[in-house]
Amino acid sequence: MSIVTIERKVLEKNDEIARKNRDLFRSQNIFAINIVSSPGSGKTSILERTLEYFNGKVPVAVIEGDVHTDLDAQRIAKHNIPVVQVVTNGMCHLEAKFVSDSLSAFDGKNVRLLIIENVGNLVCPSNYDLGEAHKIVVLSTTEGDDKPLKYPAMFRNASVLLINKIDLVPYVNCSIETMVRNALTVNPKLKIFKMSCTTKEGIAEWCGWLQERIK
Amino acid sequence: MSIVTIERKVLEKNDEIARKNRDLFRSQNIFAINIVSSPGSGKTSILERTLEYFNGKVPVAVIEGDVHTDLDAQRIAKHNIPVVQVVTNGMCHLEAKFVSDSLSAFDGKNVRLLIIENVGNLVCPSNYDLGEAHKIVVLSTTEGDDKPLKYPAMFRNASVLLINKIDLVPYVNCSIETMVRNALTVNPKLKIFKMSCTTKEGIAEWCGWLQERIK
Repeated sequence: MSIVTIERKVLEKNDEIARKNRDLFRSQNIFAINIVSSPGSGKTSILERTLEYFNGKVPVAVIEGDVHTDLDAQRIAKHNIPVVQVVTNGMCHLEAKFVSDSLSAFDGKNVRLLIIENVGNLVCPSNYDLGEAHKIVVLSTTEGDDKPLKYPAMFRNASVLLINKIDLVPYVNCSIETMVRNALTVNPKLKIFKMSCTTKEGIAEWCGWLQERIK
Repeated sequence: MSIVTIERKVLEKNDEIARKNRDLFRSQNIFAINIVSSPGSGKTSILERTLEYFNGKVPVAVIEGDVHTDLDAQRIAKHNIPVVQVVTNGMCHLEAKFVSDSLSAFDGKNVRLLIIENVGNLVCPSNYDLGEAHKIVVLSTTEGDDKPLKYPAMFRNASVLLINKIDLVPYVNCSIETMVRNALTVNPKLKIFKMSCTTKEGIAEWCGWLQERIK
C-alpha cells in the first residue's frame, strides 16, 4: 500500500503548488489553459493557429512540455513570443512545479494568455492540476470516435474539447456525431469546438471563446 | 528519493514476473508480442487484419489492455479466438502480472501466437517488460514524422515499427521517409513495415514476418 500512499502525497503536493499558480494567475490577470491530448492530435498546430489569431492583439506566452527534444518550442519561437521548454526526461506528464519554475521567464511581459502544452499522453496528465483556468483536450478525427469512452478521465476533467482534423473525415472511419455523443456521455458539460488547422475552419470560433475570457 | 526507490522496486518486481512469463512462453512454444502506440494509431485494426490473415492457420490468443471499457475485446471476440480483456482502471500501462494472471484462460488452446495489445500510451508502457519476444510499436502517418524523436524510449525499446495509415499520406503533413529516418536515428536496429488497414497494403509482409517466428 506504500505506493498508493506515496502517489497520494505526490498529488497533494502538486495540488498545493497548483493552487498557488492559480492564485498568482488570478492576481496578475493571466488566463492560463492546459492543452492535453495523445501525441500527434495537433496540439502544437492549434497553438500556432491561435498565436496567429492573437498576433499583436494580446500578449501570449507558452510553456511547452515534452518528454524529449525542444522541437515544439522551436516551432513556437518563430512566432516571436516568450516560450519556455520543459523537458521532462521521460516523465509522462507536466506537474504544477514545472509551471511555477517557468513563470519567472515571463516577468515584465504583461502576459494575458498563458498556453501550456502538456506532454502527448491521453492518460497520465489528467491527474495533475497545473493551476490552469481550463483543461483543454484535443482529439483528432484520425484517432477514432470511441476515444472519449476508452480514456474517460481526461474528458471528464477537461472543460473544453477541440475536435481537430475535421478535414480528414472523408478519409477515415470516424463519425464526428458519434464522437460528440461519446464525449458528452462522459462529460455533459464539455464545450466542444470542431476545427482543422489545415483549412483553418473553426479556429476563429475557438479563439473567440478564448478572447472573451482574457482580461 | 523514496518515490524513486519505490518505482525501482515496482520495476524490479515487474521484471521478475516478466522473466517467468518469458520462460513459460518459451517452454510452451508461444510467440508473444506486445503492441504499443498512442491512442488511435490503429493497434486494434492491425490486430484484426492479422487475425484475418492467420484465421484457421495458426491458433492465436489476444490479451486486450484498456484503461476503461471492453470495446476492443468485443471487436476481437468476433474473430472467434480466445481473448482476455484487462481493464486497468486508470493505470496507464500493462504490467507483467496482468499477463500472467490472464494466461489460465488459454489453457488447452495450444496457442502459438499471443498478441498483447497494450494501453494506448506512447510513454509509460515503454518501461514495463511483459515477457514478450518483441515489443511492436505502431505509429500512424497522421501523428506526424517527428514522433520517434519526441518519444524516443518507446522506439528504442521496440524491435519492430509498424507505420500505419500510409493511405492517408496525401492528406496529411507527414513524410514517411523522414519518419523512417527519425526512427532509425533513435534505434538503428528497428525492423520497419509500412501498412494500411484500409487498403490492406503491407499486411501480408508484416504477417509473413510473424509467420516465420511462429513454431
